[in-house]
Amino acid sequence: AEWSTQRMRDAAVDFPVAVVLPAGGSGERMGLPTPKQFCSILNRPLISYTVQAFERLSWIGTIVVVVPKENHDLMLDIVQKFNHTKVTVVNGGSTRHRSIFNGLQVFSNITDSLMPKPKVIIIHDAVRPFVEEDLLLKITLAAKEQGASGAIRPLVSTVIATTSENFLDHSLERTKYRASEMPQGFLYDIIFQAYQQCSEFDFEFGTECLHLALQYCGTNAKLIDGPPTLWKVTYKRDLAAAEAIIKETLSMSVCIIPGAEAEVVELAKTLEINLNTMEMDVIPYAKQSYMDCLLKTRNFIHVSMSGSTSSWINEVVKTLEEADHARLYPLVIIWVQLNITKQSAESNKMDDLIGLATEVLQRNVLLYGIQIDLSKRVASE
Amino acid sequence: AEWSTQRMRDAAVDFPVAVVLPAGGSGERMGLPTPKQFCSILNRPLISYTVQAFERLSWIGTIVVVVPKENHDLMLDIVQKFNHTKVTVVNGGSTRHRSIFNGLQVFSNITDSLMPKPKVIIIHDAVRPFVEEDLLLKITLAAKEQGASGAIRPLVSTVIATTSENFLDHSLERTKYRASEMPQGFLYDIIFQAYQQCSEFDFEFGTECLHLALQYCGTNAKLIDGPPTLWKVTYKRDLAAAEAIIKETLSMSVCIIPGAEAEVVELAKTLEINLNTMEMDVIPYAKQSYMDCLLKTRNFIHVSMSGSTSSWINEVVKTLEEADHARLYPLVIIWVQLNITKQSAESNKMDDLIGLATEVLQRNVLLYGIQIDLSKRVASE
Ligand SMILES: [Mg+2]
Ligand SMILES: [Mg+2]
Repeated sequence: AEWSTQRMRDAAVDFPVAVVLPAGGSGERMGLPTPKQFCSILNRPLISYTVQAFERLSWIGTIVVVVPKENHDLMLDIVQKFNHTKVTVVNGGSTRHRSIFNGLQVFSNITDSLMPKPKVIIIHDAVRPFVEEDLLLKITLAAKEQGASGAIRPLVSTVIATTSENFLDHSLERTKYRASEMPQGFLYDIIFQAYQQCSEFDFEFGTECLHLALQYCGTNAKLIDGPPTLWKVTYKRDLAAAEAIIKETLSMSVCIIPGAEAEVVELAKTLEINLNTMEMDVIPYAKQSYMDCLLKTRNFIHVSMSGSTSSWINEVVKTLEEADHARLYPLVIIWVQLNITKQSAESNKMDDLIGLATEVLQRNVLLYGIQIDLSKRVASE
Repeated sequence: AEWSTQRMRDAAVDFPVAVVLPAGGSGERMGLPTPKQFCSILNRPLISYTVQAFERLSWIGTIVVVVPKENHDLMLDIVQKFNHTKVTVVNGGSTRHRSIFNGLQVFSNITDSLMPKPKVIIIHDAVRPFVEEDLLLKITLAAKEQGASGAIRPLVSTVIATTSENFLDHSLERTKYRASEMPQGFLYDIIFQAYQQCSEFDFEFGTECLHLALQYCGTNAKLIDGPPTLWKVTYKRDLAAAEAIIKETLSMSVCIIPGAEAEVVELAKTLEINLNTMEMDVIPYAKQSYMDCLLKTRNFIHVSMSGSTSSWINEVVKTLEEADHARLYPLVIIWVQLNITKQSAESNKMDDLIGLATEVLQRNVLLYGIQIDLSKRVASE
């Protein structure tokens, strides 16, 4: 999947793509004083996760976050605190459609903006943080080709039509209908034209962008099945669900960095083949840049025969700190030395490691050391 | 709300009510090996919470749990372990409708059962544990009156009709439609007749009981707005959400038991008026039975002037243990002594309390003591 995503990306997104992220909801439905997009999960506001989901993708340009006027400064603080670099904050309107239109105008000549007009615009919700590159690529390419595209999900409940007195009128056949979700993609010219032409009634009571593209531009959107993680964080309980997903994601990947010795390189290969429950990268221990791999996970295992370690760990920690990678969540580094001998056990290497662990702990890095005496393993083969 | 529920209950449910709880789902959608209804939250399977939501209501009779044959023994174990007293376990069929029909047949003459036929049957899902008495009463009374009733919720997403090539055909006007949820209620005779008459196609592909009552008995169900907590535990993330709700529920209520002194009775009244964030009961410190209040919460505050405590705490712990109330979650008892004097501080009462705390801790009771010297408070008024 990783390779096909890479190919799709390289082959196809050779045009500018921007994002509009309406973030105007109130906290009412959650029973919370804070609007849900600004609620914190593991010390980071929900909207920052959503922004990050887009910002990490090189083929995505500007991310326009549309917030109520009273949250403008709060959003600017978030952008600064979490080092978001692609975000433009815009004030919203009184309805969802007005807010999205405000966001789109950033790229139009009307506002005299310097932003280049994107070919494709992605519209998403601030409260759907778990959107994956794979789906964003599909949405973007379908929008480029068809003019409009949107993520869908199967209906969870039967949908029923009610009479005015709240009696059952009829139930819909579930298989013929879908829930319309986010993200949606549009040729910028199409969705901008739809908003320019739509009525006050649409602005006031409509919510569905796909509907506007159909009604005003005759564009039938291409519908693309999305994963269940597209769900909208709506209720207070959804914050707990989102936190569970984030925690699981954090613990689900590991980067193995074997030393130069043939034996540990072999061991790393074996691990890569046999450990299927975690996403795993094995990267060679060398001076060349492996930043991309390092930033994909927070869990690192360094395996070596010799046990020379301090300089390597210091280098990795420094690299990760420069990328601000340990600010939000702890990094875990496990250092494994395989051929511990009586001599090396007596050396003060473990003391060095303990000292180092104490030092990096203050920078949110959890460092563990394991020494294994391979000479005592039972001979096999 | 509590009072009106009490009135509704006393006035109206003077007829037998039973429950059918289909519990046949697999774990597929959750990405879990265990079917979700048997997944544990805080050491208790989800289905046991759902059963408990019905079992605690005096006006609810038999609860028929319909499980796949392979889960029959597991379900019997749960019934025994968690002391469920109203449950009958029945094997399910190959579809949801077949399973519900199997459940209904427990009360029919066909199976020669000894169970009395209920007037109203409530059908619910095993994976919707947070159903409240208030809604169950409304569903039951509407079913008695109209023949059928069902809980509904507003649509969270726009519902769209798709073409066969997965393009947008049209979107439904959200305000005219609702999501059909559980619980649903029926006159037993109506839903049983509907199942007896319905087709193999219905049994195989249908899911909506309200639809059967309409199609085969001409009964238009009364629809009743339910709270957001009616949602169905569907995905793995929903388990985290359910756990969060349960934890919050556990910490949201407190029972205050003042000693006999006028001063603490007054204090308890003040607390009751001013502490609005928690549900609070104040019950008089007396020998009479206050089991109902004790079992509504897990958090107790005993306030007294004198500080005589051991025998009272022992009695409460004993009462709660007899009701098996501390098995699943810890109970918290905070004992507050208000008029600590030099003399009483020097007595060994606190030592007694510490000894007692150590002892009850083994029985899952967390006991804390607070001594306050009221003589040193700043005079006010
Ligand atoms: Mg989002
Ligand atoms: Mg349930």
